[in-house]
Amino acid sequence: MAELATHDEGSDSAGAKLERQLNNATATIPTRQEVPHPSDVRINVKGAFIVNESDEEVPPTTPGEDFEEDGYQHDRKDIRLPNHKAVVSHVAVDIGGSLAKLVYFSHEPGDNDTGGRLNFLKFETDKIDTCILFMKRLKEEYMQRNGARPRDLCVMATGGGAYKYYDKITEALGVDVHREDEMECLIIGLDFFISEIPQEVYSYTDSNPMAFKPQGTTSYPYLLVNIGSGVSMIKVSGPREFDRVGGTSLGGGTLWGLLSLLTGARNFEEMLSFAERGDNTAVDMLVGDIYGSGYGKIGLKSTTIASSFGKVYKLKRQAEREAEDGGNLANGDAHHDSDSDYADGGKDDGVKFRPEDISRSLLYAVSNNIGQIAYLHAEKHNCEQIYFGGSFIGGHWQTMATLSYAINFWSKGAKQALFLRHEGYLGSVGAFLKRQPPNWGRRTSLDSGGVAGKFSQLAMEQDDR
Amino acid sequence: MAELATHDEGSDSAGAKLERQLNNATATIPTRQEVPHPSDVRINVKGAFIVNESDEEVPPTTPGEDFEEDGYQHDRKDIRLPNHKAVVSHVAVDIGGSLAKLVYFSHEPGDNDTGGRLNFLKFETDKIDTCILFMKRLKEEYMQRNGARPRDLCVMATGGGAYKYYDKITEALGVDVHREDEMECLIIGLDFFISEIPQEVYSYTDSNPMAFKPQGTTSYPYLLVNIGSGVSMIKVSGPREFDRVGGTSLGGGTLWGLLSLLTGARNFEEMLSFAERGDNTAVDMLVGDIYGSGYGKIGLKSTTIASSFGKVYKLKRQAEREAEDGGNLANGDAHHDSDSDYADGGKDDGVKFRPEDISRSLLYAVSNNIGQIAYLHAEKHNCEQIYFGGSFIGGHWQTMATLSYAINFWSKGAKQALFLRHEGYLGSVGAFLKRQPPNWGRRTSLDSGGVAGKFSQLAMEQDDR
Repeated sequence: MAELATHDEGSDSAGAKLERQLNNATATIPTRQEVPHPSDVRINVKGAFIVNESDEEVPPTTPGEDFEEDGYQHDRKDIRLPNHKAVVSHVAVDIGGSLAKLVYFSHEPGDNDTGGRLNFLKFETDKIDTCILFMKRLKEEYMQRNGARPRDLCVMATGGGAYKYYDKITEALGVDVHREDEMECLIIGLDFFISEIPQEVYSYTDSNPMAFKPQGTTSYPYLLVNIGSGVSMIKVSGPREFDRVGGTSLGGGTLWGLLSLLTGARNFEEMLSFAERGDNTAVDMLVGDIYGSGYGKIGLKSTTIASSFGKVYKLKRQAEREAEDGGNLANGDAHHDSDSDYADGGKDDGVKFRPEDISRSLLYAVSNNIGQIAYLHAEKHNCEQIYFGGSFIGGHWQTMATLSYAINFWSKGAKQALFLRHEGYLGSVGAFLKRQPPNWGRRTSLDSGGVAGKFSQLAMEQDDR
Repeated sequence: MAELATHDEGSDSAGAKLERQLNNATATIPTRQEVPHPSDVRINVKGAFIVNESDEEVPPTTPGEDFEEDGYQHDRKDIRLPNHKAVVSHVAVDIGGSLAKLVYFSHEPGDNDTGGRLNFLKFETDKIDTCILFMKRLKEEYMQRNGARPRDLCVMATGGGAYKYYDKITEALGVDVHREDEMECLIIGLDFFISEIPQEVYSYTDSNPMAFKPQGTTSYPYLLVNIGSGVSMIKVSGPREFDRVGGTSLGGGTLWGLLSLLTGARNFEEMLSFAERGDNTAVDMLVGDIYGSGYGKIGLKSTTIASSFGKVYKLKRQAEREAEDGGNLANGDAHHDSDSDYADGGKDDGVKFRPEDISRSLLYAVSNNIGQIAYLHAEKHNCEQIYFGGSFIGGHWQTMATLSYAINFWSKGAKQALFLRHEGYLGSVGAFLKRQPPNWGRRTSLDSGGVAGKFSQLAMEQDDR
């Protein structure tokens, strides 16, 4: 595995960090016959809760690293499962267009049998090798602790990358890789979070930016809008009953791509920071700009955006005309080379647009658009609740505010936009859970009552296979 | 009128051109008592047809002028009304966010009483004074020929600018300006074109890019999608029965704005020319890029666009990392100034995207999005036909192809995208006609049969008012 060797020899800090992480998640070593097969393990979610980062001694990932240093980001919203004590021999990964989302279970350190936790990590899909390296370390750690053989382990993989990188992962890890359907994993994960995890689902308003919805309070059908590089919209009619009803190619990838060329921002944090400080009316054409006031007859206020980015072309043309009228030949390149392969306007016509204003305008444009299409599908399919998943939102208030406003506006308050703290991990958690029998882990299910601490007896037979 | 004086003294070529245009439309001079009041004139559309530019001796506007020289563009798709011989004492203008669309009637030159024609002109709203100057010349010409007084004349104005520039126009022209509702004018104009004008409405396919629909073949309800700077979507349930059911701010203004900053193109023609020569897969993220193939289970082919512009951010980050890894400090500005007010990425990281590829990607993105939202509204409101109006399309095949494909795709062929040769003039024609009694000019109406050559007797009474 020459390609992985390079990574192994490489950045010590990355390797040291991996070590630290794994050491902190040391499991007690069960006896060999107790190693279960993934399909037999029922995850006990009794008493599950999201860990409050500040309550922990382990220092969190430094903000702003943002993949720069180690190639991954540990989202410290671990979910403690204090009653799951069995060994878990699989990890799950959801590999999308831009990000690979990993979920794995680790036991709490120490002798007290206090169960374990789900850990959530994000990698850039472009650096999939880093993700594979991490999984390799998890595997080695697992085998060392449990004396297990590779075939006992497996990776539950979903997203497009589960197919695209199937061979690469299989060869690198030497374990079974199960490719799971992306849409199904999304809705299984969403169902888990809605039903089992307190303080997970919330709605946004300016006065109450994180109003939690109690777990289990939802009604079918509901709509899942998963916003990643692109957007999928899935109608959910029952626990495992769903239909991808639509989507849009104007997603996170579109916004980040446009802003990276138009503003010079280098990452999402910068782009969103720009947006917070921007005035979109400097580049957007409002109803008031066209009418001189509102267009009340059809319910459009003067502040309604009539055309996103609609002022830019006019202002640029005006500036060009003025530059030409002023005989501005000495002032740089007043002519443009239409065969130029520069991705910018590149003309010294004196018109500059603030990156803050551009960022806000395009954030609004993309978010409002997703909100409108989501509303139209929700209405068509009679869904009152619209859950927004995917890594695009990232808990940023401005994006949530825009989506919430759009849903509220179009539905006249009849529908509700909902968000999740683990929004980016619906698919990976769904894949993680997918091998469980139906109704695993439900607090109300008959099975889960007797699961705590119980190992599967099938493990013995499987050792001999 | 100091502001207009400047224009009067200004470009002789513009003035000379106006003169030529008006001289070519010389009317015979009726007697004073025959000057009708607008509301009494019934336009006789019997035998109406679109003039074939090449059949005419009058040289058309030179292509590529594009507002540069004279400040307006004469769209030479005149509609001959061979049977309308009465004087028409009003003009109509639809003033939108970017363009002002003017319609006026002129009699054919010469002694043969061969009726007249509707003329269609476009001005930039930013140069509204040029438009006002043109209307002023029309008025002066009219008064000279007909010996009429200003109060006999009026301007039927619609669009936001009818309100925003009401005072300016009223003061400049000294005639009545009637402000007409934009949505109503759009659907009146559309109804006129659908019902009365042969070779006006058409559908697009690659093999048959202009397949005309015979006039009058439509069924209610239908959807009008008017694409200007922004987009309005109007459900039409009857000749004057309509409801604005939605719209989107991602319209023509958005596309032109983005492309003007990202590609250096200076006008629509350049942008569309870029798009024709582009490869969107260089910047778009396709399903195949994520999956390594298609996602057949949910009907997505590998060539389906998953994320518009979705490759740009990744490629840029890759290039940045490589530049940094290469210690590329001597090579220009590898650091970025986040407070920079440049509207471009401005970093020498070696990543360039071809303007052709960017143009095609964004043309697709905006058009597909309009197509999808249009489809969702058409489905919601049970409209089989979707008419695309507004100046955005401009008869460009690529835009029509994208819209047609989107409608066909989403509706599985059940709905039809339709275009109009006078797409940008729905509002102005609607305003022009709005003063007519209901059922004016309908070929099948009882009234129109006896209208040819008939003047209103009310004109005499009105002279005394």
